[in-house]
Amino acid sequence: MRVAVLGGDGFCGWPTALHLSNQGHDIAIVDNLARRNADNELGTDSLTPIAPLPVRLSAWREISGRDIAFHNFDVARDYDGLVALLRRWQPDAVVHFAEQRAAPYSMKSPWHKRYTVDNNINATHNVLAALVEAAPDCHLVHLGTMGVYGYDADGVTIPEGYLPVRVETAEGDWVEREILHPANAGSVYHMTKTLDQLLFQFYAKNDDLKITDLHQGIVWGTQTQETRRDERLVNRFDYDGDYGTVLNRFLMQAAIGYPLTVHGSGGQTRAFINLQDTVRCVALALENPPQRGERVNILNQMTEVHRVRDLALLVSRLTGAEIDYLENPRREQESNELNAEARRLPDLGLQPITLADGLLGEVIEIARQYRHRCDVSRIPCRSHWRAAAPDR
Amino acid sequence: MRVAVLGGDGFCGWPTALHLSNQGHDIAIVDNLARRNADNELGTDSLTPIAPLPVRLSAWREISGRDIAFHNFDVARDYDGLVALLRRWQPDAVVHFAEQRAAPYSMKSPWHKRYTVDNNINATHNVLAALVEAAPDCHLVHLGTMGVYGYDADGVTIPEGYLPVRVETAEGDWVEREILHPANAGSVYHMTKTLDQLLFQFYAKNDDLKITDLHQGIVWGTQTQETRRDERLVNRFDYDGDYGTVLNRFLMQAAIGYPLTVHGSGGQTRAFINLQDTVRCVALALENPPQRGERVNILNQMTEVHRVRDLALLVSRLTGAEIDYLENPRREQESNELNAEARRLPDLGLQPITLADGLLGEVIEIARQYRHRCDVSRIPCRSHWRAAAPDR
Repeated sequence: MRVAVLGGDGFCGWPTALHLSNQGHDIAIVDNLARRNADNELGTDSLTPIAPLPVRLSAWREISGRDIAFHNFDVARDYDGLVALLRRWQPDAVVHFAEQRAAPYSMKSPWHKRYTVDNNINATHNVLAALVEAAPDCHLVHLGTMGVYGYDADGVTIPEGYLPVRVETAEGDWVEREILHPANAGSVYHMTKTLDQLLFQFYAKNDDLKITDLHQGIVWGTQTQETRRDERLVNRFDYDGDYGTVLNRFLMQAAIGYPLTVHGSGGQTRAFINLQDTVRCVALALENPPQRGERVNILNQMTEVHRVRDLALLVSRLTGAEIDYLENPRREQESNELNAEARRLPDLGLQPITLADGLLGEVIEIARQYRHRCDVSRIPCRSHWRAAAPDR
Repeated sequence: MRVAVLGGDGFCGWPTALHLSNQGHDIAIVDNLARRNADNELGTDSLTPIAPLPVRLSAWREISGRDIAFHNFDVARDYDGLVALLRRWQPDAVVHFAEQRAAPYSMKSPWHKRYTVDNNINATHNVLAALVEAAPDCHLVHLGTMGVYGYDADGVTIPEGYLPVRVETAEGDWVEREILHPANAGSVYHMTKTLDQLLFQFYAKNDDLKITDLHQGIVWGTQTQETRRDERLVNRFDYDGDYGTVLNRFLMQAAIGYPLTVHGSGGQTRAFINLQDTVRCVALALENPPQRGERVNILNQMTEVHRVRDLALLVSRLTGAEIDYLENPRREQESNELNAEARRLPDLGLQPITLADGLLGEVIEIARQYRHRCDVSRIPCRSHWRAAAPDR
């Protein structure tokens, strides 16, 4: 099928584009290189030496014999470019990664909050309006986040999107409803994904768009089968305080002998998934679209649940690294349970890569190999969730 | 108190600014005149001869002896202007009307959909980010809509914002939660107000902002005690297919001998409120702010519920007008029940103006007096809710 990958130069977008191309799909990447520009802004760089996108694409052509098109424009700003692409190329699916995706970055300053909301909501809404106008049968697959659900502590398992509830009528009877799970975002970034959900709900209802929303856990890992095939295809690895995800940060810290930075008590429990599984999940979602007129198809894209403290202990045992418990810059519960359903993707054929199997390889393959490229000054997290935070 | 009224030149904003000024508050209007510009775009005009804003303000000064400041900037675009105003003037409250507020306008074209989302979400988010940065103790009062709730038909009364539900735990017990009522928007415009709710929820939780969201029914009526004091203060009256609300359209149609245009069967049941009550409700909300750290304060701002068909029959009886049943351009239920709680504002002192008391006066005061200004060609509704609609 023809698939447009919006944000196809990013951490999840690039390996997804390669995976789908390798499967034989015809791929067009749309990207404005915002993620590389954010590195410039922050004075950071991927630990892995990522090649410029044109170099990546010619390397892929050389290695696989397959072309991936590249359109450099901003989905949140260039609506006409998006409509023109959809009209001309008539993709079967659009995979939408074109959002600012770091919670700490979204909390750095008023400008970063506003950029995240403006970019993410206009990008998503432009895609929806453009699909209605130019490609109403096209399947939209969006990368959401498990963070839309929040972390409730009342013993209720987080469902895949829709929560069955009972509500009392005026006559005192109880009726059943299945509602979109109540939103409870922990950062401006996560909030934008809760807004996206309402955009999707409306356009599925009003215009019968076919929409899949994948609520992903925290990704760990760097490479996929395709990105490993040549160093020019290597995926990005972020370890800085804004874009680095928790487990990748621990691995980097361990590799350079920096204490593992746990924010707060480390009692935060989160859902995780390996990057190789991410690209497989997107492919499974593409093979299983909803029909027009159906509600938004929501799947939880996660394979394991861990307490942050336990992850630190695991990495510490593997590598001998020390653990540093720092003040938590986020406004979140010190400790939480997390019970979530995630059966739909395994039922479609996902066979998860477990942390137990993959973690040590990741340490050797990425963190040790590239540790000479690490800038230690970029490790501390300087984004605070509230104006009253100490170092602001 | 010092109150900034964002969108203070509009249909609700202008009489609110005057009402609060008359109560002795110090008022600053922020407006980019977007509503007047939309008239230019659509080739429409208020039935009533509204004066330019500077003329309105000097007339008010002449009549009341009170100054209202005016800052002409776009809240969705000029964040720095907003922060500067908050820092310099330190208002006690901000009343936020600075959103595109017509459902048919929001559905006219991809441009109108995108403008409505971009303008409304960035306006609301700019206000929130600016309050955190410059005036965190300031009370934000926002005009929402009863349309965020949708029209469920299962016998459950719509609550004031928060719905008590029961949810089953993993152990098979049932726990009680009070959740934000599930969103069910009927247009892009209404959808933006459901997004606003999630922005408010996050900023109340993360930054302890004091926020009141007033979910208003459909407004009828034109004048308030203040706008009646001089013709230069007259409020706008919209009767066109985009901005005219249903009852005002009926009154205008009756006054000029045009058949009353009912879309579909007229079985749609909606909540209503008189404009004089709107300004009173905003004043009551300002007098009763939530405390910092409390959840968003949500009140249903409506006083009566009517079936559209019954309103047409009522106006027809009063005026002798005929009724025309037209194809419904919206995607909505042909007929619905609407049971909603609206006790909180009466409990604070609101004494509603009923349709039975006020309707005939409105016919005489506005529709008949200004009918010579009506442009009949602007009456039909040309915005369709779906791309497949006939005349698109």
